Amino acid sequence: MDLLSIASLTDEQITSLLAAAQDFSREPSSSALLAGKIVFNIFYENSTRTAMSFATAAARLGAQTITLSVEHSSVKKGETLADTAATLSAMAPDAIVMRHRDNGAPAEVADLVGCPVINAGDGTNEHPTQALLDALTLRQRFGDLQGLTVAIIGDIRHSRVARSNARLLPRLGATVRLAGPPALVPDDLAGHDIEQAIAGADAIMMLRVQRERMAAELGDAPGEYLARYGLTENRLALAAPHAVVLHPGPMNRGVEIADRVADGPRSLIRRQVANGVAVRMAVLQMLVA
Amino acid sequence: MDLLSIASLTDEQITSLLAAAQDFSREPSSSALLAGKIVFNIFYENSTRTAMSFATAAARLGAQTITLSVEHSSVKKGETLADTAATLSAMAPDAIVMRHRDNGAPAEVADLVGCPVINAGDGTNEHPTQALLDALTLRQRFGDLQGLTVAIIGDIRHSRVARSNARLLPRLGATVRLAGPPALVPDDLAGHDIEQAIAGADAIMMLRVQRERMAAELGDAPGEYLARYGLTENRLALAAPHAVVLHPGPMNRGVEIADRVADGPRSLIRRQVANGVAVRMAVLQMLVA
Amino acid sequence: MDLLSIASLTDEQITSLLAAAQDFSREPSSSALLAGKIVFNIFYENSTRTAMSFATAAARLGAQTITLSVEHSSVKKGETLADTAATLSAMAPDAIVMRHRDNGAPAEVADLVGCPVINAGDGTNEHPTQALLDALTLRQRFGDLQGLTVAIIGDIRHSRVARSNARLLPRLGATVRLAGPPALVPDDLAGHDIEQAIAGADAIMMLRVQRERMAAELGDAPGEYLARYGLTENRLALAAPHAVVLHPGPMNRGVEIADRVADGPRSLIRRQVANGVAVRMAVLQMLVA
Repeated sequence: MDLLSIASLTDEQITSLLAAAQDFSREPSSSALLAGKIVFNIFYENSTRTAMSFATAAARLGAQTITLSVEHSSVKKGETLADTAATLSAMAPDAIVMRHRDNGAPAEVADLVGCPVINAGDGTNEHPTQALLDALTLRQRFGDLQGLTVAIIGDIRHSRVARSNARLLPRLGATVRLAGPPALVPDDLAGHDIEQAIAGADAIMMLRVQRERMAAELGDAPGEYLARYGLTENRLALAAPHAVVLHPGPMNRGVEIADRVADGPRSLIRRQVANGVAVRMAVLQMLVA
Repeated sequence: MDLLSIASLTDEQITSLLAAAQDFSREPSSSALLAGKIVFNIFYENSTRTAMSFATAAARLGAQTITLSVEHSSVKKGETLADTAATLSAMAPDAIVMRHRDNGAPAEVADLVGCPVINAGDGTNEHPTQALLDALTLRQRFGDLQGLTVAIIGDIRHSRVARSNARLLPRLGATVRLAGPPALVPDDLAGHDIEQAIAGADAIMMLRVQRERMAAELGDAPGEYLARYGLTENRLALAAPHAVVLHPGPMNRGVEIADRVADGPRSLIRRQVANGVAVRMAVLQMLVA
Repeated sequence: MDLLSIASLTDEQITSLLAAAQDFSREPSSSALLAGKIVFNIFYENSTRTAMSFATAAARLGAQTITLSVEHSSVKKGETLADTAATLSAMAPDAIVMRHRDNGAPAEVADLVGCPVINAGDGTNEHPTQALLDALTLRQRFGDLQGLTVAIIGDIRHSRVARSNARLLPRLGATVRLAGPPALVPDDLAGHDIEQAIAGADAIMMLRVQRERMAAELGDAPGEYLARYGLTENRLALAAPHAVVLHPGPMNRGVEIADRVADGPRSLIRRQVANGVAVRMAVLQMLVA
């Protein structure tokens, strides 16, 4: 079994993963559940938090992680992804965690290897463990996602985080509203207004904006993005009184999110990181144990 | 004891290593044989497969690997190899695996340190674990290497893989034929014809060609190298009917090897990778346990 | 408890750390004292020896190390140090080892995280485990530091090694003399003469000089720095007959230290490296166990 996308999970698997992650999140603990197991962490894009989160999750379960970042890879020598996959598989790891800039690359690898593949983010497609940790974070606060409204705001067009959440959260009963700067939302969402999306929402998930894309959209005027599209205290006041704030990190403070929101009492951003380890422990347990 | 070259191994050690590797290759398993041991993986040249293969082998035996790639090294600050060796040795690892661009660097280090050193490829000199895994792969197919003819084709001049195999395989009873593009074979082999080398051979080992060397030889015309020097289906048809194909990887598909050969039924290329882990487990077991 | 500076340690803690390190230094051994523990090795500056030394120390105690070097970090994406700290802390490691180019960065992180932070060198401020290993090395040779004179020579202005030693060694009873090239010593030490500092000293600790700083001071004339400011055999002859030589590494041979001194019978440079692992084992044991 692989974890390539939200669609690849049954409702039962989602329920089971979230329950296991909830248990793991109660307190950081170590076990020998995966002792002797080897996880390959294959990152074709750099990532502090996701790579370390998976390595930490594996270590907590007693597994060894062997990391390959693209700088050290035969990719530079022109090897195809299929040949890399065959090579990795022949070494017989117990799981492959893969991040890749191309949509569908982890799925392509999963077809070729003899072990579970976990998508740690592929291009603009999916980042399923991020959506699972977001769901866990919301459940811890609200008990249940049934009937919640979650506004996801920012660079929707390029966001695998938005895409995975838009697929997961409705299956758990939530309504998702997507909005962002006109150039950064898909055409079928054009015209959705950020303030309207936030109005009355129970949770607001801000997305990271790439500075290059922001510059193309707005120029480099400091504060301009925040003023027009970011989560300020004023915009947050439009949400429900109990609304919470999420961000997948790393944050551009003063760009997509104001400092006082990021550090405010409604922010669950640090909790998301802790839940990330718990979710990845649950995923490794389900796929490898 | 170190593993620096094929010549440094006795016949008994070769027999013992291949027997142990055969056992390890039967199925990937984990043990605690080297629990508490520390292996330093020191790579002055990047390598996906060899570095990961050694790390996987160490992990399967319960040892911890600490990896140093040259980008993170004091080498950039101008430290001599001898001083780096003294530093590494003072940390008292249980083994040092070293890849280096200079011929003889691992041997120089071995003279200076208090633990076994394993040559993971030094310049154009040797890559002994690669030759051992090639021998294991051939033995699995043919039972015995006695009387086999192995054609090694490509950039013989710069290939440590060719050099180690040319030293190991004859000791196991095989005959080795070396051939390649005129500019890429040593003078004493000049004039050997690729087709003649392949004719009737039981195994054909294709070597990776560096694109820069190919360009210097042939220009950049696509397909030109494959047509003149690569392993096409037509050339493979010159070999024995039961002939098998090896490649140390990573492959330049469409350059030194045609896709249909690489992926064809005679290819043992993936098996080589699996055997690489098994051979390195056997080497670590012999030197460290 | 953190280890951020020498000042943060009580006399009792120093005594205890040195005693434990002495035990660990007797022979390299492995234990399961920190089994299941996770150490984050966060290096914003490259370092062969310090990063590997901490990883080796953790492995000897059975802990897992997860390494982040800045090249793979969100720092490139503009994340603040505080946000990185919050992220790392949320993953609940058992300790964070941090090297950073900015003075005080590990202390800033320590204020924000829920686990011990160990300063592995911050800017020109402190490198406390280096001073501890230097003290251990001197104690092994002299039994006691009471009454010893230690000359620290070189780029005093920029040296965290000098700073930590100048704070630690006097607490153990030694007298420290600091001297170096005029441009590379703080103003209040200006005029101190290298030969005077060395005269009669029991130990001479040479500091690494950055080639760029040397060039700005002296130009690139080969041998000029050694002749004027380096530790030659002639200068060493000014010290006490039993004097020993230390260097934190990596050495610029022929620059701040002559080959015959570095490799001579008075050199304890390799012993320092071995003691580095022992000291870091003691620190991890005290803070994490």
